[in-house]
Parts: sequence; structure tokens; C-alpha cells
Amino acid sequence: MSEIRKHYFLEEYCIVASGRSKRPSAPKACGDEKRSSSCVFCAGYEDKTPPATAVYKNGEILQDSDNENIKNWDIRCIPNLFPALSPDADEPETSDFTVDRGYGFHEVIIENPFHESRIHHSSDDEILLLMQAYRDRVNYYQSKDGISYVSLFKNWGQKAGASLEHTHSQLIAIPLMPSCFTREMDTIKELDKCPYCDIASMENDQERYVYGNEHFVVIAPYFSMVPYELWILPLKHVNHISGFTDEMLFSLGDCIRSAVSKLNETIPELAYNYMFFQLEHETQYHFNVRIKPVTSITAGFEKNTGIYINTMPPEVAVDHLLNRD
Amino acid sequence: MSEIRKHYFLEEYCIVASGRSKRPSAPKACGDEKRSSSCVFCAGYEDKTPPATAVYKNGEILQDSDNENIKNWDIRCIPNLFPALSPDADEPETSDFTVDRGYGFHEVIIENPFHESRIHHSSDDEILLLMQAYRDRVNYYQSKDGISYVSLFKNWGQKAGASLEHTHSQLIAIPLMPSCFTREMDTIKELDKCPYCDIASMENDQERYVYGNEHFVVIAPYFSMVPYELWILPLKHVNHISGFTDEMLFSLGDCIRSAVSKLNETIPELAYNYMFFQLEHETQYHFNVRIKPVTSITAGFEKNTGIYINTMPPEVAVDHLLNRD
Repeated sequence: MSEIRKHYFLEEYCIVASGRSKRPSAPKACGDEKRSSSCVFCAGYEDKTPPATAVYKNGEILQDSDNENIKNWDIRCIPNLFPALSPDADEPETSDFTVDRGYGFHEVIIENPFHESRIHHSSDDEILLLMQAYRDRVNYYQSKDGISYVSLFKNWGQKAGASLEHTHSQLIAIPLMPSCFTREMDTIKELDKCPYCDIASMENDQERYVYGNEHFVVIAPYFSMVPYELWILPLKHVNHISGFTDEMLFSLGDCIRSAVSKLNETIPELAYNYMFFQLEHETQYHFNVRIKPVTSITAGFEKNTGIYINTMPPEVAVDHLLNRD
Repeated sequence: MSEIRKHYFLEEYCIVASGRSKRPSAPKACGDEKRSSSCVFCAGYEDKTPPATAVYKNGEILQDSDNENIKNWDIRCIPNLFPALSPDADEPETSDFTVDRGYGFHEVIIENPFHESRIHHSSDDEILLLMQAYRDRVNYYQSKDGISYVSLFKNWGQKAGASLEHTHSQLIAIPLMPSCFTREMDTIKELDKCPYCDIASMENDQERYVYGNEHFVVIAPYFSMVPYELWILPLKHVNHISGFTDEMLFSLGDCIRSAVSKLNETIPELAYNYMFFQLEHETQYHFNVRIKPVTSITAGFEKNTGIYINTMPPEVAVDHLLNRD
């Protein structure tokens, strides 16, 4: 049986078609990873990457110099060797169509010096430090001239687009506001109150509740575009990571760790992306993190309509994640 | 070097970052297909599928009866065994959120009785018949009560979402207008003239021209979201496949065949989706087909911003496709 579900407040739809989970290509884990024997993100290979722009070590934030790389680090932030955008982009050739130069920043956040490390095995100190690094690096690039939006995300697993196995996140700072945010803000501004505040409150004790702590809640959203999609929302209205205290940052990290852990227990070695949705200059926006596991393929229908066919109702996903089945 | 390219007329952007093509996971073909030994789409296995809703045979359009399957067909249309939507959908349970029943139709168009057949090897008669079947089936479902949009698409290759190897297209008729079309029409209606007519005319003799015939042109669009993306546009303004004569249908099929052929010569066994974009009741819309090869993965950045990072400038893609490099 299928349902067409409307997004909580946008004019977007998805089809929840649980009958389709019986197809030959039903959700399964990634599992075709190859381990590199000489990973440039590992401790000891610092000279194989560009100099670090920020190094977290023993409670300090340092920088590599041109001729020396800092060793024994906790988190290491480096420019992406194949950047999508760069600060010294050339002016493009003129064209009949509209074009801007590829100005921006593309950074890799190596979350941990150890190749075998997994984010859901992080200690409390490690997960807090990672969230602090996220906040620092987003704030750093958000303040750069000409930057309108800083995209922070993690690709885990080849099927989720990770070209290297060693655990890392990425940050791409861009000189324009993505139109999905513009549209979302247009809608939010027409409403009497924050729709995400409503979602956090309404889903907090429903069948789609996955995990929660003092400051955040993890839910499988009613509007789930992909199987096992999870959203992490602050209970209190905050628009951007810069508005979080360390205590709130730890709560956020705790929710990410718990969500990824539950996903991994349910589907071992699952590939996933998580993305931070936030707007620094729009106080009406409500910070949220969306975790999108990769168990299915975006095919012709989605590319034609923008409407995703999801074979896993979120209510069933939560039963699996909480061992209720 | 990267460029940020604005869509021809929408507020959508992509980053063309040719430097990224040197990454470890640069575009490559699908290639991990498994051949089924007992394909239910092959001639002789008609009883393994639901009865056909339309069978093209010797110039006639027939239907299976409940107790007899038509043999020796040219094209066979059957209900999808795992439909995303169905005409006898139940009312959903009530919810705190907006939900509609999963009403609609999901059909598979088996393009050819032979397992080894490839669309780019079609004869003139075969490709015309396929386009005629596309027109018939779209019109059939477009006229059904409660249907607002008929999505017609082809998934080729596992990485493009094809769960069966035997060449087939699909059609999903849905009871709502996808918001991407609503937004596109809002923009089109604000313009003085049809932007697609402009595109077809401007790109027809430029470096992004790939192929053309009397009625259609194939281009690698300036705004290409993925490597080797191709668009097929009628030179004359027509909003929907129902407006095409048989002569125009053949021109369209000739362009699809030629485009897929060039893609396959450049990247053997490439996985791809193609989608028909058309609006029956909006005469200001301009019919187009978009072919999206699958050589890259939609990762966190795209899922955060809706902005695709494309490692292959369309101008270079055309050089490859036309053996100009």
C-alpha cells in the first residue's frame, strides 16, 4: 500500500510505498568498500596533503606552517585537494548565458587520526570536540567576504560519495544562497510560527521518535524521502550552529552519534550522508541536521518529478531502529 | 578551474568544476550488470507478468485477456508488479499531517521482445513504434480521472535504478502536479517568450550542439547538472507529446537513438536515465527530454543545497561525444 505524503509545510511530496520493499533491489547496505593501505588522512601522512588550515590538539587550535606539519593532532582541517570552488578562482570566459566565477572554499575535516575510527564509537570528549570544530569552521567561512552559505556535510561510504574511507566531513562555502533555502524561507515567513518548532514538539512523543536528550530530538520524519531518513532538531528555536553553547553542541553530537549507531546496528556498514541546514542571518530559520542513508537509487521518476519513492515508511524504520519488531 | 553556472532561466545553479575530474572516483561506466537467465520481460515468459494492458503487434494495439497472453509482440505494456501507486489505493490512516491516498498508475513498457536488444540499435521502424507507444500510453493515462501528471522515463543500468536488465521504459501517472513544474511554469509565464525556444535556437550551432534533424536538436546544455547530460528539444514550440505528428515522433526517436548511441560509444555500457518533461494543459510549456548519465554520486553537498557539482563541462563532453578531442 502506498501513501502520498506532503512535506510538513512545503509544497513537496513523497510517495511512501511499503509494498515496493519486496522488490529484488530492496534496501541493503553499502559493503563494497575497499581499504586503502596508504591513507593520506591517517596520522603520519600529514605531508601528503595541503597544509592544514586548522589543527585541534590538546585543547588548542593551531595551523600548519608551510614547512612543518603538526603531528599528534585530534582533528585536522585541510583544503580539499580537488576543490569544487576556490578563493582565487579566475573570471570565467564570457558567455551568452549567466555565469559567475567559481569563488568559494572547500575544506576537509579529518575527524580523527585513526583509520579504523567510526563516528558512532566516539567518546564524549571526541564528539564534543568535533561539534566545536564544526562550529568554528562554519563561523570562520561564514565571515569570509562574499560567502552567502556554508554547506557542512559528511559522506560515509562509497555509495554516499566518499572517495576516501577514513572518517571525514566536508565544508563548502559558496557565494550564493541555494534556492531551496530561499523557497523554504519564503514559506516560513508566511507562517504564524516556526514549523520546525511544531515538528520537534509534535514528533517528540510519537511513533517516529528515535532518540532525544536535553536539547535535541532525533526523529524519522513523517515526510521521509529515503528509507531510514532521520532529522535532528533542537527543541529550542536556534537558527545556526553559532547560537549553540558547548552544552548544546554536546547534545547535538550525542544525537548524531546515537542516530548513526542505531542505523549501523540495523544495517551494518550502511552508507549515508548527513547535512547541516542552517541560516546565519535568518533568525526565523530553525537549525536541523538531516541524515540520509543510501539504500536506494534516485532514478528517472525522481529526476523527472522531484518526488521520491520511499520503500520504507518512517514508522517501520523506527521499529527496526529501536528493535521493536 | 570552476564556474558557477546559472540555469538558463530558473534560479538554479550548478558548479562546473573541471579540475575535479582528476579525482580517484572520476566518471566511469556502470559495468557491474548481471544477466538474468530467466528474464520475465523476454518473449515466451508472458505468463510470468500481470496481463498486458497494451500489446503492439503487426501494426495493431491489442490487450491480453485474463486467460491468454498475446505472443510474438513488438512492444508489451504491463502493470508494474511492484507499483509505486495504484488505481485501487486505500484511504490512508488519519494523521496529524497532510496525506493523500496513493492513487495512480505504474506501467512498464517492454520495448522489445529480445533480451539482448539495445535502444540505440533500433531500426527506424522500431524507434518510431516505441515513440508511438510512448504517445499512446501517456495520452491514455493523462485522460484518466484524477491524474495531473504522467511521468515517462527510462532507467538503463543498475546504477540508474534498473532492477531488470531487459530494455524497458516506465510510466507513472500521479494525481498531483510536481512542484518543480509549477515553479518552472511560474517563471515561464513571467517571460516575454518561450525560453526553450531560445535555447533550441541559440544552442543549435554552438559548441554544445550534439545532433539534430528536421524537427529536433540534441544539445549538452550550458546548465549541465551531471557529466554528459543531454537535452532533446523540438525546434518548433510544442508542449506535449500528443502534439507530435508521426513524422515528428520519428525525429524524436532518431534523436534519442543517436544521443544514446554517442554516449555508448564514448563510455561503453554507460548507465543513464532519460525523462520526458511535458505539460498537456500548459501550452506555454516546451516539451523536452533530458538524458542524465550516471557517472557520479549525488552526495552531501547536493543534498544540502540542491546545487550539483559537475566535473565535466558540457563543451568538453561534446568534444568527446563527437570525437573532436
